[in-house]
Amino acid sequence: MRSSSLDVALAVDEIDDDSSVTPVTTLRIARPLPSDWASLPMDCEARSQYKVLFCDSLLGDDRTVLQEAIEDRKALLVTTPTVDRMYGAAMRAALKRTNTVSTLVLSAREETKSMELVESVCKEALSHGLNRRGLLIGFGGGVCLDVVTVAASLIRRGVGHIRVPTTLIGQIDAGIGLKGAVNFSGKKSFIGTFHPPEQVLIDPVFLQSLPRKFLVAGIAEAVKMGIVRDPVLFEMLESWSPELVTSGFDQPAVQGREVLRRAISAMLDELRKNPFEDQTFERLVDFGHTFSPALEAAMGFEIQHGEAVAIDMALSATIARLLGLIAPEACERILRVLRTASLPVFARRLDVPLCREALIEACRHRGGSMNLVVPAGIGRAVFLKHCDDVAEPVLADALASLSARVQGES
Amino acid sequence: MRSSSLDVALAVDEIDDDSSVTPVTTLRIARPLPSDWASLPMDCEARSQYKVLFCDSLLGDDRTVLQEAIEDRKALLVTTPTVDRMYGAAMRAALKRTNTVSTLVLSAREETKSMELVESVCKEALSHGLNRRGLLIGFGGGVCLDVVTVAASLIRRGVGHIRVPTTLIGQIDAGIGLKGAVNFSGKKSFIGTFHPPEQVLIDPVFLQSLPRKFLVAGIAEAVKMGIVRDPVLFEMLESWSPELVTSGFDQPAVQGREVLRRAISAMLDELRKNPFEDQTFERLVDFGHTFSPALEAAMGFEIQHGEAVAIDMALSATIARLLGLIAPEACERILRVLRTASLPVFARRLDVPLCREALIEACRHRGGSMNLVVPAGIGRAVFLKHCDDVAEPVLADALASLSARVQGES
Repeated sequence: MRSSSLDVALAVDEIDDDSSVTPVTTLRIARPLPSDWASLPMDCEARSQYKVLFCDSLLGDDRTVLQEAIEDRKALLVTTPTVDRMYGAAMRAALKRTNTVSTLVLSAREETKSMELVESVCKEALSHGLNRRGLLIGFGGGVCLDVVTVAASLIRRGVGHIRVPTTLIGQIDAGIGLKGAVNFSGKKSFIGTFHPPEQVLIDPVFLQSLPRKFLVAGIAEAVKMGIVRDPVLFEMLESWSPELVTSGFDQPAVQGREVLRRAISAMLDELRKNPFEDQTFERLVDFGHTFSPALEAAMGFEIQHGEAVAIDMALSATIARLLGLIAPEACERILRVLRTASLPVFARRLDVPLCREALIEACRHRGGSMNLVVPAGIGRAVFLKHCDDVAEPVLADALASLSARVQGES
Repeated sequence: MRSSSLDVALAVDEIDDDSSVTPVTTLRIARPLPSDWASLPMDCEARSQYKVLFCDSLLGDDRTVLQEAIEDRKALLVTTPTVDRMYGAAMRAALKRTNTVSTLVLSAREETKSMELVESVCKEALSHGLNRRGLLIGFGGGVCLDVVTVAASLIRRGVGHIRVPTTLIGQIDAGIGLKGAVNFSGKKSFIGTFHPPEQVLIDPVFLQSLPRKFLVAGIAEAVKMGIVRDPVLFEMLESWSPELVTSGFDQPAVQGREVLRRAISAMLDELRKNPFEDQTFERLVDFGHTFSPALEAAMGFEIQHGEAVAIDMALSATIARLLGLIAPEACERILRVLRTASLPVFARRLDVPLCREALIEACRHRGGSMNLVVPAGIGRAVFLKHCDDVAEPVLADALASLSARVQGES
């Protein structure tokens, strides 16, 4: 029996792949099957709960929050050079009574967000003997948290992680969901995971040290949630975004916190409907994220993610206005709130061919339907399902309208 | 504001890590909190169902099973050199009417099971433009399926995969659960995932070409399930394992299929209780998997996984006998069924220090409790929770008893 199958193996090797002769199956002789030789079902459910916790002095008076989150587990702190320089010592002091065994400082930037960084976290976890109860603490912006999330999902088939986002985009968007991803072979976020954190700790104090351009870029995601589902948030941003951007969310303080809370709450409400993105390809949070990936790719890293999102939102709103889906006054408020927050509403690089390409890619990515999110008012949005819903003249008119507006401004 | 936080950043940099002074927090001024500035909950449930499907001629008459599983999706076939040589042409012929775009042949062996192999699958998926509806087909033994499972979990944050295990251990153990893992930095299975397949297709015809040593090693996992939960399976193996091993499960055919079906069914029943291994560290399927990892590590790849499992089961049964947990007759049947299947029951390399080390590692791995599974009869097992439950003299006696038995045999 053994030698005959080896003979077959050699024979198969010589056969052209296109041949329809399948010699190995001749080995098989039809057999009566046991009556229940058919199919066995497997059903598995995973339920995860986590919380986004607001703190007011995580590295000071509220440091017990960290201690309680870590419990007695062996933990590894993962951060970035900038965050380590600014807050590393304070964080380590806050972690003093915990079993945090090491700090790994990663040069995690959008350009370096790769499997190599993920593997360096895994290596550190291995060298410190983290077991399945081990814990990662991600302390930094969205990119750092992405790397930590992917690493946590892979170490010993998944360990817990806590996120402490230090950027605005991390606190209201990238850091509060289940997703983590890294770039791969030149493809943005090709490799990734859905791996819920145990806790996300939000402390607005970190925003005070954030460079203005990151505050501006981050506020774009808050504007997004205001436009698609929270008119109160939208109005707060109309009133307060200049001061919030200037003060790093320190002034006015109550309103700054309320903006964060509303943006996070809206985002979690949306995530809750479809946490693993397997229920629907209609996602309100995709607003501003259809044309922006193409724009970011075309402009390299000359443009902030939030800036590209703002331009996408302005274009989507203008398309909605041209299609009669939103009142011109509401569209105008959307464009104005973006400009009030110092966000751009147009980039010359965004032309009709790039937009069409982006819509085709969206169809590919969203299971065959375009699902372009466009506002239908302040706090309300609809989905355009088919590429035909946005004809080329509409695209051209929308781009021309925004281009003219920008020229009028300057 | 910006410049003041930069000043602070520089100041922090100069502070000793041990200092309890945390200057960055001085930036913070206590603020009144909005009334509901506290915590937002997130609850996410993932439910996956899959089936283990028994086929009788997957590459012949039953090839519609593959076509139905793949649907119209773009698929990538991942296999190993041996399987490709034996069944590659037949598989490609069976996949002819599907949108299977490429075959990736991986040198996937226990020694090469690494992130590099996972990344080569990801690269192939990227180069063929697999989208989120893309599909991987893993066609090979446990190692190949491990690599495919990890890759499928990572590509675009998770794509579907179908498994076609070609080895006995793949069909009844490694290929039917949710787990996939690769070695990392010299640590076995350190990096991995729980990622359920869509379907596992079991065709016993592949076992006919499996070298005898792999059949013997694989049957150890069937013996395992018989001992811990299925006395009928155990009795079938007492009667038929020599013939099944010799014929590659072709003779006697009905019994061969029934052994597969019972082993798989028992395994799925156990997995179902704790699919993500987050409910309990008491896992019956860990029987034979406490001492064996240490033995495998100590002997390099000179020993088959199934052989190490058999030796572990023999030792665990003998420990149970010495502790009065199993009747001597039942223990004897266990040792005899292993020998009947040509499996070893002892290795000189397994000494008391190695066993103690293995028990300590088990405690580390299983959340602090040893959870050594020992048989309490045929089809029944119990857990020994604490390292003290197996005193050193008991270990020494058990090893001596097995050593004497082996010397008596030769």
